[in-house]
Amino acid sequence: MLLSALLTSVGINLGLCLLYITLYSILRKQPGNITVYAPRLIAEHKGERRRQFNLESLLPSAGWLRQAWQPTEGELLSLFGLDAVVFMRIFIFSMRVFSFAVIVGIGILLPINYLGTQLSDDSDLANTSLDTFSISNVNDGSNWLWVHFSAAYIFSGVVCYLLYYEYSYISDKIISCFYSCKPLPHDFTVLVRGISTSSGHTVSEDVESFFTECYPSTYLSHSVVRRTSKLQSLRSDAEKLYRKLAHLKSNRDARRRFTREGPLGLFGRQVDLADHYEKKLVDLEERVRIQQSLLAGQEVPAAFVSFKSRFVAASTLHIQQRINPTKWVTEQAPEPQDIHWAFFSTSFFRRWICNLAVVAACIAITILFLIPVVIVQGLTNLDQLETYFPFLKGLLELTFISEVITGYLPSLILQQFLSLIPPVMVVLSSMQGYIAFSQIQKSACIKVLWFTIWNVFFANVLSGSALYRVSLLLDPKNIPMVLAEAVPGQASFFIAYVVTSGWTSLISSELFRLCPLIFHFLAKVFARENDEEFKVPQIPYHKEIPKIIFFGVLGTTYFFLAPLILPFLLIYYCMGYIVFRNQLLNVYVTKYETSGRFWPIVHNSTIFSLVLMHIIAIGIFGLKNLPLASGLMVPLPVLTLLFNQYCQKRFLPLFKAYPAECLIKKDRENQNDPTIGEFYNKLATAYEDPAMKPTQHSLSTDSRSTPLLQGAESENLA
Amino acid sequence: MLLSALLTSVGINLGLCLLYITLYSILRKQPGNITVYAPRLIAEHKGERRRQFNLESLLPSAGWLRQAWQPTEGELLSLFGLDAVVFMRIFIFSMRVFSFAVIVGIGILLPINYLGTQLSDDSDLANTSLDTFSISNVNDGSNWLWVHFSAAYIFSGVVCYLLYYEYSYISDKIISCFYSCKPLPHDFTVLVRGISTSSGHTVSEDVESFFTECYPSTYLSHSVVRRTSKLQSLRSDAEKLYRKLAHLKSNRDARRRFTREGPLGLFGRQVDLADHYEKKLVDLEERVRIQQSLLAGQEVPAAFVSFKSRFVAASTLHIQQRINPTKWVTEQAPEPQDIHWAFFSTSFFRRWICNLAVVAACIAITILFLIPVVIVQGLTNLDQLETYFPFLKGLLELTFISEVITGYLPSLILQQFLSLIPPVMVVLSSMQGYIAFSQIQKSACIKVLWFTIWNVFFANVLSGSALYRVSLLLDPKNIPMVLAEAVPGQASFFIAYVVTSGWTSLISSELFRLCPLIFHFLAKVFARENDEEFKVPQIPYHKEIPKIIFFGVLGTTYFFLAPLILPFLLIYYCMGYIVFRNQLLNVYVTKYETSGRFWPIVHNSTIFSLVLMHIIAIGIFGLKNLPLASGLMVPLPVLTLLFNQYCQKRFLPLFKAYPAECLIKKDRENQNDPTIGEFYNKLATAYEDPAMKPTQHSLSTDSRSTPLLQGAESENLA
Repeated sequence: MLLSALLTSVGINLGLCLLYITLYSILRKQPGNITVYAPRLIAEHKGERRRQFNLESLLPSAGWLRQAWQPTEGELLSLFGLDAVVFMRIFIFSMRVFSFAVIVGIGILLPINYLGTQLSDDSDLANTSLDTFSISNVNDGSNWLWVHFSAAYIFSGVVCYLLYYEYSYISDKIISCFYSCKPLPHDFTVLVRGISTSSGHTVSEDVESFFTECYPSTYLSHSVVRRTSKLQSLRSDAEKLYRKLAHLKSNRDARRRFTREGPLGLFGRQVDLADHYEKKLVDLEERVRIQQSLLAGQEVPAAFVSFKSRFVAASTLHIQQRINPTKWVTEQAPEPQDIHWAFFSTSFFRRWICNLAVVAACIAITILFLIPVVIVQGLTNLDQLETYFPFLKGLLELTFISEVITGYLPSLILQQFLSLIPPVMVVLSSMQGYIAFSQIQKSACIKVLWFTIWNVFFANVLSGSALYRVSLLLDPKNIPMVLAEAVPGQASFFIAYVVTSGWTSLISSELFRLCPLIFHFLAKVFARENDEEFKVPQIPYHKEIPKIIFFGVLGTTYFFLAPLILPFLLIYYCMGYIVFRNQLLNVYVTKYETSGRFWPIVHNSTIFSLVLMHIIAIGIFGLKNLPLASGLMVPLPVLTLLFNQYCQKRFLPLFKAYPAECLIKKDRENQNDPTIGEFYNKLATAYEDPAMKPTQHSLSTDSRSTPLLQGAESENLA
Repeated sequence: MLLSALLTSVGINLGLCLLYITLYSILRKQPGNITVYAPRLIAEHKGERRRQFNLESLLPSAGWLRQAWQPTEGELLSLFGLDAVVFMRIFIFSMRVFSFAVIVGIGILLPINYLGTQLSDDSDLANTSLDTFSISNVNDGSNWLWVHFSAAYIFSGVVCYLLYYEYSYISDKIISCFYSCKPLPHDFTVLVRGISTSSGHTVSEDVESFFTECYPSTYLSHSVVRRTSKLQSLRSDAEKLYRKLAHLKSNRDARRRFTREGPLGLFGRQVDLADHYEKKLVDLEERVRIQQSLLAGQEVPAAFVSFKSRFVAASTLHIQQRINPTKWVTEQAPEPQDIHWAFFSTSFFRRWICNLAVVAACIAITILFLIPVVIVQGLTNLDQLETYFPFLKGLLELTFISEVITGYLPSLILQQFLSLIPPVMVVLSSMQGYIAFSQIQKSACIKVLWFTIWNVFFANVLSGSALYRVSLLLDPKNIPMVLAEAVPGQASFFIAYVVTSGWTSLISSELFRLCPLIFHFLAKVFARENDEEFKVPQIPYHKEIPKIIFFGVLGTTYFFLAPLILPFLLIYYCMGYIVFRNQLLNVYVTKYETSGRFWPIVHNSTIFSLVLMHIIAIGIFGLKNLPLASGLMVPLPVLTLLFNQYCQKRFLPLFKAYPAECLIKKDRENQNDPTIGEFYNKLATAYEDPAMKPTQHSLSTDSRSTPLLQGAESENLA
């Protein structure tokens, strides 16, 4: 790629970004778009849904930037919880890393690369190939390469220092959050799975007798899990019907309340829709009640067991309860609103098999993903299209159409396939037997990350079949050389990738929320009921974190190969920092918390990218006839991995469980708390399946705040 | 190797074994040898040290065989503890495996191999090469190979079933042992290392305040560790001197009590030795007391903390105590007599570095072991010897001498180097920061096992430099082919190895105890003091288990390649079973227990040998032009590894910690036990360093049962 081409691409994307930002600053002020741009505020009843129109709202403004900038980290923590803070720390960490990288890369390495003559390209600056700025241009065996060598060592040191600092900073935050929070149900509760009952006893009886015997002074209560997926679908039907009814009743336009009985509502006797719905609702609720009474007996061999003390709950987690370690398996209970009630696989053996199958499926999807994509893309081949659909022949002969099909369609297909991956990974993760949405999200995050690294980084770097890339892994000796030959050549591709997939897609899809905006617009035009419930989104960590991390992997890998990528990355992180702060304030809500457990993923992938950089460095210095540098590079990955192991030992335990010291201190505090009795009462019912709570729509259809709705709301928003 | 050569070798070794057995059955009846052949009985005061001579004792007899056969497993358990039972289970397991293997291998596979014509060797049976009995003789592409294929599948299934059965059998034993044992100090105690003290407090104060605050109702006591290696050496000097003195005083021969003051006791004034020793002893004890008072202040930041409940002790083990997981690290306390007081590294960081260094050192020793051996063996080259030591020239020209040097010396050197390995591994393991002899032994056992597999199996199979073998590991694709080409050729070597290193060395060194016998004889001849203390040995698990397992690895690997090895192995295991039962009854004592924790090593190495067999099978079927069988073999190692993972999940947790159910049940039992108060009193002082206990030799030199000796005895034998 030539420098001029890069500048054109950057210019176009910069223009697009500015356009989107301007549009955003105008559209966000329009009252009709508030459900798109500030759903969080509506949920908190801060946003006014209908505002008066005025001319000022049509002018672009930068007030949102100031608003997004203002909150301190403490405020973010109290408003959005630890996960959001950790999410923002990824940007802060990356900005620090790449500020340093830009100084070293652009200030020192880039001039050295440019002054090399290996590629002997002496034309003017605009026509310079981008490779001139990469390490490929430094002459073989040149002593200037020792600067790159030192830069790799220093950069690794700085990144490791920053990693250590972040890990320890977030650890401190976890502890202080734990100390400052009020009693939370999930700290006092464990989930016991795979309960084997003695003959003649129900699960509930066995759980009760075991825990009262073993923990007589601290056992509080338990609730046995029931399989309620059918009941849940019935209830959600009832709820929808109830909403329709409520909307109908509140509607002043009486005409709409009547329809005809016949097909399509066109023929037959005229009926009152409200009466019709009410009858249906009564019927549905009767079925819900029958299901509930049926399910009361259908126990799943799993139960949430609550204790009066955090410490005892934690110790039951850590000690194997029964002689057979595959029975009565305890695990940390998630927050009540975080439970994924639908999937509740309980048998240890089945979960183990599911886990293995999912891991195998993930590996298969990751490795073989490009094969179906390439086949589908092959279908867009013009000749094939003409064979399959002869009637298109005339159309396909138009230059414009054929250009779109051959030039744009393949990349569109790839994008569509790629956007399928996060949901697919979520489905796979949920099959692994996790019981919390947050656990599923975390597991999906890891899967999406490795998928991205394999199918974006390695697929572009190592052109060739998927099997060729796998076979490389089976030949570890040659990895450095193969990577060193392939990676530098793709620098310009990845610069363009950062600009398009980073900048523009961040602004258009995250800030401007293009898809929700279009849906909102379509709903307005086509749907009659504008007041329909809308969902306040939660940050899709499993989609966003892998993207952000992947740019970090690119930056670290290319740091000393092609430093030209670094400023673009730094700009991306700065934009991301401000955009996501804005979206946190306006768009997203925190439904559940993982207490910062996403950070280890960031840490590990940064270590991975450092080691990848070192491996490439070993290969590069070998190729550049500097075997000494190549050999001296070998200790660096070893040291990095040792550093990683130390960090795992020093910090990771805190991301898995709280230490006894903290638990006992909090327990003691609570003993003197007069409100703890009330909390225990709530705790006893906190882990009941919401589907098993009584319904009473039809009895109180005139009031909006029925118990069921409250339950549903607390389920969604708490 | 020809069949006749094998038969000769078997005959010679069989003869040697019978000779040793006959000699053993005679010598064990001689009163003078009782310290060699029945030290356990002496320690238990069952053996009579002086018996009347009679003629019958000069005749060989097989009474010991009957005695060794008699005890049931329950008796073994109550007499020698769980470790000894697990050790004997290795033999039982191996006998079962190889009984089945012999039936299939000799009954089915051997005739098929022999009827093949690939090696086209049609001479008479005695001159047949052993390769005729191996899979190499089956014709390429022959359908008979499917029998081998099925045998591999069936054998793997049977071994896995037996492994599962053994794991579950030993698990049950562990639980029933735990239920039946009386309260043991180490169940109530944890070791806390890396204690960080707050300023102005001693370790003892901080431990006391932390545990009384966190576990007010169950905390019992603690004892801080002190660095006592210097004190220990002083005490052992004092003890030796005291014994000399006691011996001297009890000696009726008064002449010996006097010696002269001058050099070598030949010149100068005559003195009473007893007086002289007594003065020295008083002096030494004064120094011991000074050291003790000095050390009372020198605390190591580690302490044994005892609780009133097993369950609380176990839960402190599992939960991280402090916010910093590298401080106040808890681990299971070993039995008091099992503690390796000398090495007490406490800093988490230092232990981590030591661990890494030891692992690196082990890998280096294992991989590079043969290099120094080969160099030293090179020195036995006759020409070189003549160059270095010209005066030997005449001697070396004698045929006999030169034959011994070239033929026997290299293998002797290799044996000497090999026999150094277990002690070296013990030293390395003790540097890893383990605090118990049993942990060191277990860790050394694993190290010796891998060393043996690498340096006996792979070094013989893959001739070539160590680096060549390592480079193979870096090229995983080719491993099956390389192994399939190399392994079958070494079958005859390993048959000879089983016969010499298995049969003869088992009988000569284990049953006949050749080395202790020689030492005993030399001591009798040269040392004046015959009544000197003798040590009752403990089974050197770290030496024996790797040997036994290694034969299993050989048998499994060669099961379908060269089934001729199997009967020899079966005989080895039968002999080992009876010999070790005999030695347990007569020779060894149990000083400390690991509660069966050696079994997972046996399990894992059996799985390893199965997978090794499968990999070789994949290669062999490929070489034999049966690619379908080669491909169908691939699921077998995968299934085996899955089986292994399941076993780890199902059984391994019990080998690490007892479940809450058992702990709470035992705790409850003890609450009603009237003697528990007394046990708590003992527990409070159980973990005091024996070196810190008061000494009082000089005050009571006339009585043998001084407190120090009692302490030392309980340390050695309890």
